[in-house]
Amino acid sequence: MSIVVMKFGGTSVADAEKIRAAARRAIRARKAGKQVVMVISAMGKTTDRLIELAHQVSDNPPKREMDQLLATGEQVTISLMAMALEKMGVPAISFTAGQVGLVTDDVHTKARIKHINVERIRRELDAGKVVIVAGFQGVTEDGTVTTLGRGGSNVTLVAIAASLGAECENYTDVDGVYTADPRIVPNARKIGRISYDEMLELSSLGASVLHNRAVEFAKKYNVPIHVRGSGSNRKGTLIVAETQDMERIVVSGAALKTDLAVITLRNVPDRPGLAARIFHTLAAAKIVVDDIIQTEITPKLATVSFTVDLVDLPDARKVCQQLCSKTRGMTAEFEQDLAKVSVAGVGMRVHTGVAERMFAALARAGINIRNITTSEIAISCIIAQEDGPKALRVVHDAFGLGRKRARSTKSTRKKTAKRRNTAKTTKVTKRARKS
Amino acid sequence: MSIVVMKFGGTSVADAEKIRAAARRAIRARKAGKQVVMVISAMGKTTDRLIELAHQVSDNPPKREMDQLLATGEQVTISLMAMALEKMGVPAISFTAGQVGLVTDDVHTKARIKHINVERIRRELDAGKVVIVAGFQGVTEDGTVTTLGRGGSNVTLVAIAASLGAECENYTDVDGVYTADPRIVPNARKIGRISYDEMLELSSLGASVLHNRAVEFAKKYNVPIHVRGSGSNRKGTLIVAETQDMERIVVSGAALKTDLAVITLRNVPDRPGLAARIFHTLAAAKIVVDDIIQTEITPKLATVSFTVDLVDLPDARKVCQQLCSKTRGMTAEFEQDLAKVSVAGVGMRVHTGVAERMFAALARAGINIRNITTSEIAISCIIAQEDGPKALRVVHDAFGLGRKRARSTKSTRKKTAKRRNTAKTTKVTKRARKS
Repeated sequence: MSIVVMKFGGTSVADAEKIRAAARRAIRARKAGKQVVMVISAMGKTTDRLIELAHQVSDNPPKREMDQLLATGEQVTISLMAMALEKMGVPAISFTAGQVGLVTDDVHTKARIKHINVERIRRELDAGKVVIVAGFQGVTEDGTVTTLGRGGSNVTLVAIAASLGAECENYTDVDGVYTADPRIVPNARKIGRISYDEMLELSSLGASVLHNRAVEFAKKYNVPIHVRGSGSNRKGTLIVAETQDMERIVVSGAALKTDLAVITLRNVPDRPGLAARIFHTLAAAKIVVDDIIQTEITPKLATVSFTVDLVDLPDARKVCQQLCSKTRGMTAEFEQDLAKVSVAGVGMRVHTGVAERMFAALARAGINIRNITTSEIAISCIIAQEDGPKALRVVHDAFGLGRKRARSTKSTRKKTAKRRNTAKTTKVTKRARKS
Repeated sequence: MSIVVMKFGGTSVADAEKIRAAARRAIRARKAGKQVVMVISAMGKTTDRLIELAHQVSDNPPKREMDQLLATGEQVTISLMAMALEKMGVPAISFTAGQVGLVTDDVHTKARIKHINVERIRRELDAGKVVIVAGFQGVTEDGTVTTLGRGGSNVTLVAIAASLGAECENYTDVDGVYTADPRIVPNARKIGRISYDEMLELSSLGASVLHNRAVEFAKKYNVPIHVRGSGSNRKGTLIVAETQDMERIVVSGAALKTDLAVITLRNVPDRPGLAARIFHTLAAAKIVVDDIIQTEITPKLATVSFTVDLVDLPDARKVCQQLCSKTRGMTAEFEQDLAKVSVAGVGMRVHTGVAERMFAALARAGINIRNITTSEIAISCIIAQEDGPKALRVVHDAFGLGRKRARSTKSTRKKTAKRRNTAKTTKVTKRARKS
């Protein structure tokens, strides 16, 4: 008998009615002949409420105790879900991470799973029960409660599905992964299949459907994830391993990230270790850095620029000014009210002309490009914040994402312009986060 | 180094300020050179809120899932308490019942403790930490969460103190056990020492300081419990094993229980097994019966009367009317708006005249006695509800409970009246609850 692991996020179990709706969905899968495991998050705003409680007693609560506290959120929901199923006449049993042997390391608030003892789950499934597991949490070998960090419930989903060799369904408040945020791009289209890598790019570029850690985990164990809407029965998006077929699609989606600031360090002495020191100092101040660009000015001096979230700008400003005061000639400039528009697709690996097409579309719309960064399967442009929504729409249109997807890229190639704008830009690394 | 186990009930940890106050109390004990274990209940109304949540999804939630749900209440408070202590610079660590090896049977919602592995607690105490344990909860051998039922946190307190050979302090919103409810009897006096048995009587007679299960547990393992107010530093009441010295005190306290109904069954055929059937039928309907009195009318017919809580009267009425319809000649009468005033004291075992003194005091106050029941160390009178508070005051005064306690009972004996009113009354058993 095949097993399906269904994950329901906080908004999908936010009240009794939604819990019942999720229970009915599990029952439907059961009636279709499947054994069902549910992975459940805390109800709606529960986690926020618990954090608020913690901050009432301490401005810096120990992480071990924070995990002990936060894990109660999922424990409440799993027992309510079991009650709802039993009330509907379906035998069910709830398990905390500890009860199901989901063992992690002891890195509190962002623990990593070491192993899961799925025997208990199998036993209860074989006894005809729906098994409900608390997402987001784990225990160390000695039974101390841990949590898996942001997107943790999705990590639980993938880990359990991988251990059971099960199908994997992720129910959220959106019904799949879109070619762009439909709130900004009205003709955005739901993507049927997307590769792990494309999903990873889109997530880090601003699309918030699924947290990267879960996708990385799914990629590692090759577990396809079906992202579906908890409010509908339609097929969602299947996140799967890359296939040759996928390479024919140049761009899978576009994303917009807003509220960014760009910091530019000029006259940076080009000596080994200095860049490392700069980014180490920023990381030590817990500032997440992205889109690092280094350009040589003279053989001995370079310009380094990177983006930070606007909220981190005051801290970043302090760190950079201190660095400048210690390095002769080095200056720092700060720009805010910026956004980043990006396209991602595994087809970029083999197709040319993607960058040109993107730049041309932005140029036609009169949108100035401040910075450009690329990865193997993504291109990003830093632009003015006020241009953000428009930029996302024109880029989305330029790659025909809203219409039925073209299965060949011949038309793309025809329009390829001759010059490439990125020549002077040395990409250091795209994801230098917390390096 | 001596260990003290301090228990804080829900009202004593109802908000951040009260959690801090409890933490400060633990710190004071630590500064006084003691190792400190705290046993903590759920915050204020948390348990009620969780029950309400459960009832939103099921009118009859499975008990296993109910325990899984309710146990989160204490888990929240223990982690907050650890955070508060750490914030005050004192190392602390919180443990759920599972983490500390508090193993129970699998009788959900009223599990009984089988054993506690206190080694983990000792290790953390020896490492200089305040150890915080979730009250009210346990786990079965296979890690399933259980709860210990009403008064469960006090059972946890006593069990841990017994296992550690520790002192035992129970902090509540009253600062000790009083000779009567101070809200009704203004000159009620705090009792310095009281025996387990007296406490058990007073609890079942209406004083709600400590649940009987905890006192029975303390008696079994001979663990003295210090009942103290969480709002003051004064000594409270020590609940201890009976000493010879205690017998000189005839009456330790008086109690009032209101909202009672008396049911009288007349012409009950006096044949073996019938009384058992009556009370079995009531118990099966979950009606708690107390103060059973059987009086012989003829050698073949008896009158049986007993009290029930007013809320149970409608159900009890139905059960009794059915019984009457099946037994020729038997009739049932129902009286409500009744209360019970009681006195308790181990001295009653050896001293006479207690009943007379009580009846005389009630007679002088013009209070009519409806029924009388006695146990080895308590006497109770059923009276009109409207007479309740006055009755408690006059009985309290009659035994001089409000003044400094007389150390001899000579004066008591002098006033002893000659007749005993209980001659015609056959006591069957006082505590036929759920028999």
